[in-house]
Amino acid sequence: MKEFKVIEVKRSILEDNDADAEKLRQELKEEGTFLLNLMSSPGAGKTTMLKRTISMLADEMKIGVMEADIDSDVDAQAITEAGARSIQLHTGGMCHLDASMTRQGLLEFGAGDFDLVVLENVGNLVCPAEFDTGACRNVMILSVPEGDDKPLKYPLMFSVCDLVLINKIDVLPYFDFDMDKCRQYIYRRNPKAKIIPISAKDGEGFMEWTQWLREEVAAWTNS
Amino acid sequence: MKEFKVIEVKRSILEDNDADAEKLRQELKEEGTFLLNLMSSPGAGKTTMLKRTISMLADEMKIGVMEADIDSDVDAQAITEAGARSIQLHTGGMCHLDASMTRQGLLEFGAGDFDLVVLENVGNLVCPAEFDTGACRNVMILSVPEGDDKPLKYPLMFSVCDLVLINKIDVLPYFDFDMDKCRQYIYRRNPKAKIIPISAKDGEGFMEWTQWLREEVAAWTNS
Repeated sequence: MKEFKVIEVKRSILEDNDADAEKLRQELKEEGTFLLNLMSSPGAGKTTMLKRTISMLADEMKIGVMEADIDSDVDAQAITEAGARSIQLHTGGMCHLDASMTRQGLLEFGAGDFDLVVLENVGNLVCPAEFDTGACRNVMILSVPEGDDKPLKYPLMFSVCDLVLINKIDVLPYFDFDMDKCRQYIYRRNPKAKIIPISAKDGEGFMEWTQWLREEVAAWTNS
Repeated sequence: MKEFKVIEVKRSILEDNDADAEKLRQELKEEGTFLLNLMSSPGAGKTTMLKRTISMLADEMKIGVMEADIDSDVDAQAITEAGARSIQLHTGGMCHLDASMTRQGLLEFGAGDFDLVVLENVGNLVCPAEFDTGACRNVMILSVPEGDDKPLKYPLMFSVCDLVLINKIDVLPYFDFDMDKCRQYIYRRNPKAKIIPISAKDGEGFMEWTQWLREEVAAWTNS
């Protein structure tokens, strides 16, 4: 038996997603729940990164993960096995989540039970960047094999993120990836972005990343 | 000075993209031009693959490349430097191309001058799969670092492709990627898919890939 729910989320008929997203953030503030929107290309390592993050923070805070996927349950299964509560959101072919779809997931999940809810968005560097989900912070993962030029090619994604995790630094020797150039390209899109190189495989950079997350959650839920 | 044109393509108001795509294929048939739609995640290696392909086939056929990008010119520049004619299609934030947008590019490019035109679609495994561009064949690149489970997570993309190139096999030793499992997952989505493992970096698999392309172009333009 599956240990996670699967929900078909429907696109809303609301015209004003931005206002709806702002409303959702207010609701989350009142509930004392921090919602993190996690975005990346397919295969950049979102699920592996989350599994390690959960193992490091699970003793300190209640964490839930909402897995948005077109129609598979692969990731929710993996997160459940890692020991966190998880819910699978099926987008029915949609390439992104908007605030209304996110709210449907949160309602089913019971967001108030959690200090931190991570929305693992659909693997896509284009569409998810265009829709405010109502999350408190946006984080994206860029992985080394994708190349250092991605901030030039997917500008909006890098503009809307508060933090960029550069993952798979364990394979830097095998790829032509210039970390300094990548940082410059990211800053060109978003001078305020925080950048943390990590390896979800071996844990490098996770002290800094989890400390950032810990502080963000505390600032949101205590204020 | 840039040696390639940049065109802003606009989404059509046509309701029936499928019919428009079919019409475009007929026009290409009459002109004796083979249009290949190339899709992948961001950073899977489309441009590197194309540069090597052009170097192997440029003496045999006239090749043009249409680079679809949200707003950068990075790829058109690279292709022009590789010695092929190139045009940059800016999609104005759109996450895919439809048949009408493709036709706008072909008209500006002068498709009749080429035996083979490659449409390098926006890096995205979701939306481009939903729109028939009017291409004669669909090819996608899955790269080893993305993981062998991608056919489970992006089912439509694998269903609509005639050929899947599995790229970056030179880094197989550094990733947990099961080639047999990946083939099984692809066949589950698309039993008729042809699969060719390649390394765009060192050329492995390119004899088989270029032979496939050569035969497809010949069959289309001679019949």
